[in-house]
Amino acid sequence: MDDITFAVLGTGGIGRRALEVSQHKEHLTPAVACDRHGTAIDFDGLDVDELLAATEGNIDNEVATDGGTGATPADGEGGVKQHGEDRGVVASSQARPSEDPIQDVIDHGDEIDAVLLALPNYEHDFIPRVADRFLEGGYSGVMIDVLKRSRVIDMLDERGDEFEDAGITFICGAGATPGLLTGAAALAAQSFVEVTDVEIWWGVGLKSGYQDNRGTVREDIAHLPEYNIETARDLSDAEIEDIIDDHDGVIEFEDMEHADDVLLERAGVCDSEDVAVGGVLDVRSDEKPTTTTVSVTGTTFDGETATNTFQLGDETSMEANVNGPALGYLKTGVRRNRAGEYGVFGPAELMPSF
Amino acid sequence: MDDITFAVLGTGGIGRRALEVSQHKEHLTPAVACDRHGTAIDFDGLDVDELLAATEGNIDNEVATDGGTGATPADGEGGVKQHGEDRGVVASSQARPSEDPIQDVIDHGDEIDAVLLALPNYEHDFIPRVADRFLEGGYSGVMIDVLKRSRVIDMLDERGDEFEDAGITFICGAGATPGLLTGAAALAAQSFVEVTDVEIWWGVGLKSGYQDNRGTVREDIAHLPEYNIETARDLSDAEIEDIIDDHDGVIEFEDMEHADDVLLERAGVCDSEDVAVGGVLDVRSDEKPTTTTVSVTGTTFDGETATNTFQLGDETSMEANVNGPALGYLKTGVRRNRAGEYGVFGPAELMPSF
Repeated sequence: MDDITFAVLGTGGIGRRALEVSQHKEHLTPAVACDRHGTAIDFDGLDVDELLAATEGNIDNEVATDGGTGATPADGEGGVKQHGEDRGVVASSQARPSEDPIQDVIDHGDEIDAVLLALPNYEHDFIPRVADRFLEGGYSGVMIDVLKRSRVIDMLDERGDEFEDAGITFICGAGATPGLLTGAAALAAQSFVEVTDVEIWWGVGLKSGYQDNRGTVREDIAHLPEYNIETARDLSDAEIEDIIDDHDGVIEFEDMEHADDVLLERAGVCDSEDVAVGGVLDVRSDEKPTTTTVSVTGTTFDGETATNTFQLGDETSMEANVNGPALGYLKTGVRRNRAGEYGVFGPAELMPSF
Repeated sequence: MDDITFAVLGTGGIGRRALEVSQHKEHLTPAVACDRHGTAIDFDGLDVDELLAATEGNIDNEVATDGGTGATPADGEGGVKQHGEDRGVVASSQARPSEDPIQDVIDHGDEIDAVLLALPNYEHDFIPRVADRFLEGGYSGVMIDVLKRSRVIDMLDERGDEFEDAGITFICGAGATPGLLTGAAALAAQSFVEVTDVEIWWGVGLKSGYQDNRGTVREDIAHLPEYNIETARDLSDAEIEDIIDDHDGVIEFEDMEHADDVLLERAGVCDSEDVAVGGVLDVRSDEKPTTTTVSVTGTTFDGETATNTFQLGDETSMEANVNGPALGYLKTGVRRNRAGEYGVFGPAELMPSF
């Protein structure tokens, strides 16, 4: 595989870890990182250590879709690091302030093979709106997100023809779940001629990663029965802490509206209603409160009923399980985007490449 | 996905089950089945029920590579069903005798999207020789095998440029192991930045499928320390029964020369020497003697060591785990072969399609 140059939009927990993990991967050059304050661009490869150190603990994972006037999260920007007069990613010496960071990225689109959308998902149409800007800007390449919400897929689907016309390969939901775990479910399904039941049950212990992953926690809270994506977005940090206290730091989720269901239905594995997603989040311990498990039950051509399972080791962090797969799928996406492959392939090469 | 027309070369256990499982799959039309005696061709779709019933228990999974004069396995053809004067697949009313069945398939190559090589592996160069005939015959499309032997991959690799020039997508080792299980290993690896150890441990209970899978048993015996592929090929049926008796019907294998290792190395997952393959075969019970498990151990970007696992339900038969994945990878192969994909894709759609 040829080298891949990629951009990260958003330098929150996911964006930061994606940059970090990419340093362990072959053929991946992180060339662009931006948030709504500015843009760091270096096609010889960003100095990831400098960028992460300069912005550590003072992150901003927002990228306005419309040149700087986008919505501001309720928790404000109080924690965003300043570098002289500059905030967010611009605290890095590699970054420059920008009125329109997305346009900066689009302007370099010819040199960017893939764009990882490490953006929060406070509004359903946030990522679709970002995609629209890349469409309008004439980008062709891979776009990839790690979103979890079923209904966003439909919004991206509505743009399917435009993506095709533009030459964009858009991969949605490529993190731990739905990404890694639906991938495992699709593979586990191969033993069966009919899949009757997919259960995805995750455990996340987030003590040491809590500060970097507040956006993820907020989004998880939106999955509780008492909240939705809009009301969770409007919660103050103090209100989120109260919710966490009410649950003694351990929040259990059932029947989540996770994109796993629609993604498995799209892949022809099963009906979306046959997919159940739940899990347990512990923000006060790094130990996983439960082992992340995918169970796929189906019937075989010879009439047996069985369950194939995929389990993640408890020592793998959420960050490891999000960012490894995200970059794996990113590489696979670029390979698809470049298209037209002939020759000998092993099955494992048809999977997201390691 | 558009409809896929495929041919099965060899109507032994794997070929028969591939035809059967394909009836449960969408978009797959089995159009050609052949053994060395003849060819059944119907581009509206073979009547699989008739073909399987007509040839049941009287199979022949050999296809000569050179127009009928290929090597004959030592166990002879005594059991091959005759239909009037006709033997093997020709016992089906849909088949016609042929002096050169492979040429029949090649002559219809324009209408065949994929060729499943459900051939035994008595000689290392058997499948490569078949591939040569398709190359010489000007075939372009997918070729896929379910072989297990590491060294055959190298022989196919030597033909890589020719496959590329011809427009052939060749997928090797697409059955249960290496196919399904290396796929699972490649996926399980995504949590890690370095994979240190892959252990593939399979269990097969084959009582009711023993007659149909003698070729597979013979090939497994070749993995015992006392045998190799040549000496196993020369064993008589009685000698194989003796070996089985010596093991009380349960044979354990360690450090098998399985293609899993080279396929995972090709995919960049780990070094081939970090892969261990073994398992237990019980030909006197349909119960699996051990649970088929893939264990992938690695280190995460944040310095943890963990093991991700993939397990097949004990009720899934070898046939289910070979043929589902083989057809899944076949479909994926055709999609790759047709190339140039744009638009929205879920991660699960990047896996072998269900």
